[in-house]
Amino acid sequence: MNSTAKCSILLGFFFLLPTLAVAADTLRADADRMEQRIVALSAFGANTDGGVDRIAFSKADLAGRAYITKLMKAAGLSVRLDTAGNIIGRREGSQPDLPVIMFGSHIDSVPGGGNFDGDVGVIGAIEVIELLKAGNIRTRHPLEVVSFTDEEGGLTGSRAMIGEVDDRTLSVMSHSGMTIGEGIRAVGGDPDRLDLAERKPGDIKAFIELHIEQGAILDEEGIDIGVVEGIVGIRWWDVTIEGSANHAGTTPMNRRRDAMISAAEFILAVNQVATSMPGAQVATVGKIRAEPGAPNVIPGKVVLSLEIRDLSAAKMQAVFDDVRAASDRIADARSTPIRYEELNVASPPAPTNEAMRRIIATSADDLGLSFRLMPSGAGHDAQDMAQIAPTGMIFVPSAKGISHSPKEFTSAKDMAHGASVLLRTVLEIDGGALE
Amino acid sequence: MNSTAKCSILLGFFFLLPTLAVAADTLRADADRMEQRIVALSAFGANTDGGVDRIAFSKADLAGRAYITKLMKAAGLSVRLDTAGNIIGRREGSQPDLPVIMFGSHIDSVPGGGNFDGDVGVIGAIEVIELLKAGNIRTRHPLEVVSFTDEEGGLTGSRAMIGEVDDRTLSVMSHSGMTIGEGIRAVGGDPDRLDLAERKPGDIKAFIELHIEQGAILDEEGIDIGVVEGIVGIRWWDVTIEGSANHAGTTPMNRRRDAMISAAEFILAVNQVATSMPGAQVATVGKIRAEPGAPNVIPGKVVLSLEIRDLSAAKMQAVFDDVRAASDRIADARSTPIRYEELNVASPPAPTNEAMRRIIATSADDLGLSFRLMPSGAGHDAQDMAQIAPTGMIFVPSAKGISHSPKEFTSAKDMAHGASVLLRTVLEIDGGALE
Repeated sequence: MNSTAKCSILLGFFFLLPTLAVAADTLRADADRMEQRIVALSAFGANTDGGVDRIAFSKADLAGRAYITKLMKAAGLSVRLDTAGNIIGRREGSQPDLPVIMFGSHIDSVPGGGNFDGDVGVIGAIEVIELLKAGNIRTRHPLEVVSFTDEEGGLTGSRAMIGEVDDRTLSVMSHSGMTIGEGIRAVGGDPDRLDLAERKPGDIKAFIELHIEQGAILDEEGIDIGVVEGIVGIRWWDVTIEGSANHAGTTPMNRRRDAMISAAEFILAVNQVATSMPGAQVATVGKIRAEPGAPNVIPGKVVLSLEIRDLSAAKMQAVFDDVRAASDRIADARSTPIRYEELNVASPPAPTNEAMRRIIATSADDLGLSFRLMPSGAGHDAQDMAQIAPTGMIFVPSAKGISHSPKEFTSAKDMAHGASVLLRTVLEIDGGALE
Repeated sequence: MNSTAKCSILLGFFFLLPTLAVAADTLRADADRMEQRIVALSAFGANTDGGVDRIAFSKADLAGRAYITKLMKAAGLSVRLDTAGNIIGRREGSQPDLPVIMFGSHIDSVPGGGNFDGDVGVIGAIEVIELLKAGNIRTRHPLEVVSFTDEEGGLTGSRAMIGEVDDRTLSVMSHSGMTIGEGIRAVGGDPDRLDLAERKPGDIKAFIELHIEQGAILDEEGIDIGVVEGIVGIRWWDVTIEGSANHAGTTPMNRRRDAMISAAEFILAVNQVATSMPGAQVATVGKIRAEPGAPNVIPGKVVLSLEIRDLSAAKMQAVFDDVRAASDRIADARSTPIRYEELNVASPPAPTNEAMRRIIATSADDLGLSFRLMPSGAGHDAQDMAQIAPTGMIFVPSAKGISHSPKEFTSAKDMAHGASVLLRTVLEIDGGALE
């Protein structure tokens, strides 16, 4: 018997004693192990810029999912897929009738994404299980680690879990080239039986998501932990601008109805509206397509995306109203009709649970870590889970606040801080802190 | 013997007399025959929008070529293919040592093309032969009617005729799914022996192309004939704008380096420069791609096309210089570097032959048709032929200037006007007007 095995036995014995809580207090995430796993995960879909193209449902996503499944099993979790393709690793509690404490995040990326967004939350959740296993700690509540399906494509996995994925969503074309429905099937889910993936209020004691911050607040202020006070609402539109496709060589400048010119004015109007109001609202045109899209043809149509986010639903509507008024003027002046189709991916602003915020803050404080309240400017699976369970989010610093980019970076130390706070939060809830 | 036959015999006798020129003056193209042939040709590759998809080298193109060959033979031409697949119908002259007078155009279309672009020039050229045959007129010079191979894919047939198709061009993938080399073989040419298709300066007395206009100048001004003063030069660039890809929810508006905003300013600057200079220059952004191209990511890169056309190379450079100066200011102000890569598809402005312009104008005037000088904003086989022979182009009106579209329309009357001017121009040249 080697010393590690001896130690495990000793620890196991130790944690069965009434002094268990004292020992659990000493558990800290293993920064090296987390970093090694983040690096290993980054191989799946690695691109030449140092980030990943691990689009949901792609081959890279499938490979990453297999790796996560392997880690979960190695940590002693009992792993299943729900019908939405969410990977769920379960660890039974000592009181089988208690609702589950769930935590996790996602491993799919945007096109040209980085190695930390989502990944830290999944690797951190598995780290919590590793620590409980190594410490031979049995919680009262069952625990479930979740890696959600297709977060970046519209929170697909968590929306399915709250019963909000309808047929129209399933038919949306994802970046993988498959519809979301086809993608769910490709990862092993069953889009025809998403009802089986649903969780009901009461089933889940609490949901906690560890994630990198996506602005530069913690990084710039040198703070260890962000306690998320809420997730901003998001609305998306497809905006279509109609001009007249015509020969770029033979159509004089003053006779054109060039959809590209109107699109340019629209993009600047969006920026103008979002920057001229007081507040932290953001509005973005991230995607654009001109048709027919040849250098020698005046664009007859441009389709672009409009996204608006804010913690206030009323503010989001005000931004949209101003953008719409500006675009009506552009459409009239250039005889290029502009129409809007709002996509069914809107999410209302989602405040986190107040008790959960307090538990996370206390956990950070007990660990000697600095912390602050902050909003999340990004959407997260947590915002869906907040509809059916007390939900909290733990942020860790991201260098320069860069995210959705190969340049994302969170240090191993910061990742470990986050996982340690996650463990402590789980144990506090298990111990009755939410009662 | 019916009256038409009698008439032909009388006319034949008449044209053999010294008063031949007077009789030739009375010849007019048959609008009904031309229209019937345009309609017949439009069956090959007909699409559901009322236009054609007669992509070079496609089955539709092969069928259309067979139809044209049949018409040429029926008009008494001796038909051969050169090694570039150009269909050449020859009618010998009375003085075999004289160089050939060549005229024609093309019958291939862009994807989703119309029934007049190119077709009017080929049907009109055959009409000239029909009239000479009916009138029993023998020219001094040999005549050649040409239907060029793959005009829309890069002036392939005429470029081969001037010795400018190299192996790289042959390996270019065409819309047909074949490389240009494979396509030439598919229509009966021999891409390995394109040298045999070359014509040398002196071989061709003159080249004339009848074509529909591709702006709306003639149509709107109610003018019958356009005397083309030259074909504009074209330059293309790929323009790359570098920003910082970042999360669209978490990056405040004032911390963004959004390549899309700079792209919008660039597009408006191009329009501003092209419209603020006096002259007929055009500049177009027809193609745009944002990276990563997701609604929830601030674009870190935008790549777009810039095309500039004008009859003057100096003017094209001046437009580019002003665009570049504006983009330098945008790049500095937004910290988004903008770089240019010029593509190797540039074609210099190709002025038509001055004597040819005069002959065409005189021919139109003699026929009682209104005419005006105008540039061609589009590329044509004539621009290649201008490198080895005195070249002229005759434009006829196109409704609303629409081209490269199923909505192209030129009336039978206008087509016939063009063919009558073409006939008269050929006879003037044959009679010594270029000496």
